[in-house]
Amino acid sequence: MPKAPGGALLHGFSIDRATSTPIYRQLDGALRRSILGGALQPGQKLPSTRELAQELGVSRITVKSVYEQLVSEGYAEAKTGAGTFVSQGLEVENAPKVRRSRRQKEPPNFEISDRSKTIMSSLASVRHGKTEPFRPGVPALDQFPLKIWNKYLSEALIAEGRRHLSYGPANGSAALRRSIARHLADARSMQVDPDQIVITSGAQQAFALISAIMLNRGDTVWYENPGHIAGRDLMQIMGANVVPVPIDNEGMNLEFAASHYPKPAAIFTTPSHQQPLGITMSLVRRLALLNYAKDNDTWIIEDDYDSEFRYRGRPLPALCALDSERRVLYVGTFSKSMFASIRLGYIVVPPALVDSFAKFRTLLGQGSSAVTEQAMANFMEDGRFVEHIRKMRRIYRNRRDVLCECLSRDCSDFVEVEPPDAGMHLLAWLKNDLADQTAQRVLLEAGIESLPLSVYAFDPIERSALVLGFTSVHESRIPKLVSRLCQKLSQLQNT
Amino acid sequence: MPKAPGGALLHGFSIDRATSTPIYRQLDGALRRSILGGALQPGQKLPSTRELAQELGVSRITVKSVYEQLVSEGYAEAKTGAGTFVSQGLEVENAPKVRRSRRQKEPPNFEISDRSKTIMSSLASVRHGKTEPFRPGVPALDQFPLKIWNKYLSEALIAEGRRHLSYGPANGSAALRRSIARHLADARSMQVDPDQIVITSGAQQAFALISAIMLNRGDTVWYENPGHIAGRDLMQIMGANVVPVPIDNEGMNLEFAASHYPKPAAIFTTPSHQQPLGITMSLVRRLALLNYAKDNDTWIIEDDYDSEFRYRGRPLPALCALDSERRVLYVGTFSKSMFASIRLGYIVVPPALVDSFAKFRTLLGQGSSAVTEQAMANFMEDGRFVEHIRKMRRIYRNRRDVLCECLSRDCSDFVEVEPPDAGMHLLAWLKNDLADQTAQRVLLEAGIESLPLSVYAFDPIERSALVLGFTSVHESRIPKLVSRLCQKLSQLQNT
Repeated sequence: MPKAPGGALLHGFSIDRATSTPIYRQLDGALRRSILGGALQPGQKLPSTRELAQELGVSRITVKSVYEQLVSEGYAEAKTGAGTFVSQGLEVENAPKVRRSRRQKEPPNFEISDRSKTIMSSLASVRHGKTEPFRPGVPALDQFPLKIWNKYLSEALIAEGRRHLSYGPANGSAALRRSIARHLADARSMQVDPDQIVITSGAQQAFALISAIMLNRGDTVWYENPGHIAGRDLMQIMGANVVPVPIDNEGMNLEFAASHYPKPAAIFTTPSHQQPLGITMSLVRRLALLNYAKDNDTWIIEDDYDSEFRYRGRPLPALCALDSERRVLYVGTFSKSMFASIRLGYIVVPPALVDSFAKFRTLLGQGSSAVTEQAMANFMEDGRFVEHIRKMRRIYRNRRDVLCECLSRDCSDFVEVEPPDAGMHLLAWLKNDLADQTAQRVLLEAGIESLPLSVYAFDPIERSALVLGFTSVHESRIPKLVSRLCQKLSQLQNT
Repeated sequence: MPKAPGGALLHGFSIDRATSTPIYRQLDGALRRSILGGALQPGQKLPSTRELAQELGVSRITVKSVYEQLVSEGYAEAKTGAGTFVSQGLEVENAPKVRRSRRQKEPPNFEISDRSKTIMSSLASVRHGKTEPFRPGVPALDQFPLKIWNKYLSEALIAEGRRHLSYGPANGSAALRRSIARHLADARSMQVDPDQIVITSGAQQAFALISAIMLNRGDTVWYENPGHIAGRDLMQIMGANVVPVPIDNEGMNLEFAASHYPKPAAIFTTPSHQQPLGITMSLVRRLALLNYAKDNDTWIIEDDYDSEFRYRGRPLPALCALDSERRVLYVGTFSKSMFASIRLGYIVVPPALVDSFAKFRTLLGQGSSAVTEQAMANFMEDGRFVEHIRKMRRIYRNRRDVLCECLSRDCSDFVEVEPPDAGMHLLAWLKNDLADQTAQRVLLEAGIESLPLSVYAFDPIERSALVLGFTSVHESRIPKLVSRLCQKLSQLQNT
């Protein structure tokens, strides 16, 4: 083979024999960088494998193998008899490489409100560390029957011909949808066909599906004020015109809403246990709401997030149970009745909409696992779920009582509480004009979590309060934590 | 206590003692229906508990208890000394109840194209039944080390102070993000900080986040034609103007795109293994694409969906690895390298965007489970993931070879195939003007799945083909299946 004229010299490169990086990788990396950085120009000849091997003191096989890789990736071209050349047509940078600090394009102007920023930053700080006592909405995870659940999960994973390793049906597991329909009949007096149910990763994905499928940009959505934070942020971001409806002692103030915001496309409500005020919507209001929706061709989004936990009387039927017109989109979740990382929730929709919801569940990214769906179906079928709910209800009632007692007894100079009939949190109304966001921050520094009532509201609120979750804190720890809470509020007031 | 005047008579109601429904429930249900249906009018007096008990032949305690429940739910009001009355103010229906068949409000006009309907209906039929042979993108589930994975899952669920039962960090598990960053360095030559990674439920949720965060309505998105179906449908539904860019033998035709659709906001591409044509984007084209993006302030969405499976040479580095400007949003998934119902994927974004992606992951509905994230991190950390990929690569190469051989040998009158260098599917080009959608339908009836190439395309295609997945079918079954496929195509041609 004729010797071709000498190729480019690789200035400034030598093999580092002290490092653990293999020689192959060192040479390969150096050549790539030289080509991409413009030190080796398109069309330029590389040294022959023999020359380069000698020069660097490495085996010729190594050099050959690096060249072959570069050729296979398009960095270089081999011309028979002539040698190896840097590929033509590569748009490389000619100037020595300077990493310019370019303007980072900002995301488009989606509406993240200041309120949303507050809650997001507080959520972020919570989520990255461990959960601190009194964080709202956290179940008694220490009481969860984990070994039993693990058994159900393993069985679903392994025992059934591996069929749950695939995506599963577009609307979610048929077995789980049957179990949920039975549960809704027993616990919520709802008569729904399992085929009206679409499984989601939780309530939030249900809201995302509703926003994407049912709402056009600019559509008016009546929203409880104060109300569920993440649902509101989501609908705003999806382009809806979310408007605040005040809450009175029967629930949403429909008269106010009807006179201020005509023709809503949807109404978001938590009738069983208003989030966060805890009011149960009266029957009068429920029927009025259903009539309004019927007459105005409006959808009702019923978020039934913690209705399992009622401590006095029988749980009220869901609003959806009264709805003969099929205007109610009913949203349920297992994040609170089981645990958050189970990633399971569901939505009940009219038959005509099931197909759209199932498709959008696929398009927006299926969030629930077919394995978990099957495990949950079996867990419900065997009565484990109801058993767990009953046990939690007893535990939560007790924890609620202890927290209320401690706050009333030791902290009545700073807060006022009333035991809620239902749910997983209570409101501690702040006295002496303490600002709830300040109080929340100071308490978080002292290892006590809460959410300020004001972040649930669309506008400044008249009376500050902290939302305290009582379900995840063992009753034995409550007195000491309340003392600390009281002490911090006292310090705050005296500064 | 003075006897109040007699209350309403409950016409037509009697206790059914043959049914298993408790008497309490029967009475409770009858009264509710009468009130809501208007048979009992607001303000009307109910019979006294004594009267009603006598009349129905049930215990007075039962009647009392039903009345108390109705009062507690707002159906009725108790007036001391006067009796129990149907609540005032209930907006009930006055006419006898007729379930009217009301116009069901249709979802707003979101763009689901005919193409999308085709693929959706074929997906739906697949997902509701069992997976049939040659469905594209299905891993060899029978070869998945399920017992080992179950061990990792159980450990993550149980062993760690139950901390994975909560939501986990907004951007996903730190341990998993570290493992992914190391994997990307080893396998894809990418140097990314674990904090640039946001965990998703899979590639599709990553596209949803990108659409929601990065794209304004009407923004132009260059999209490979033919190209990934669900990603295109999603972006269209989210309001983007998705435009088709033809594929040549080096990848996307940038000249065509630049002259037809100036100033795209984003470019969607599958450079490692074009979906579905299988072309690897050349280095020349990669550099040109990166330069175009830099000069035009455009984002590149790199969908690296099956790059783990390359059967010849070393896998090419990701496009993202060449990107010094941080214009590439890199999307990866475990749906194919592990299994679909694991519900895990990720996106690599520039540091300035991490916070937005983490927040939107929460807002759109967190799809991945903190338990699964931890299990996956440990599975990767212990080298199990790479071991599994290597094993699958061997198996898939063999299955590819057998399928290609059988098709070339037995079915060459109807299809033409070329063994792909990478990925999980091959293209069987149809001869004799057979239409791919017809062929797909006929084969599905015979228990053979495929996807018609035409559903990947924006407009009618010149040459029909079927996309056949070769990874999930055991090599021993392939010859017989190919015979059946050949037979069906032969019949189709002769009709």
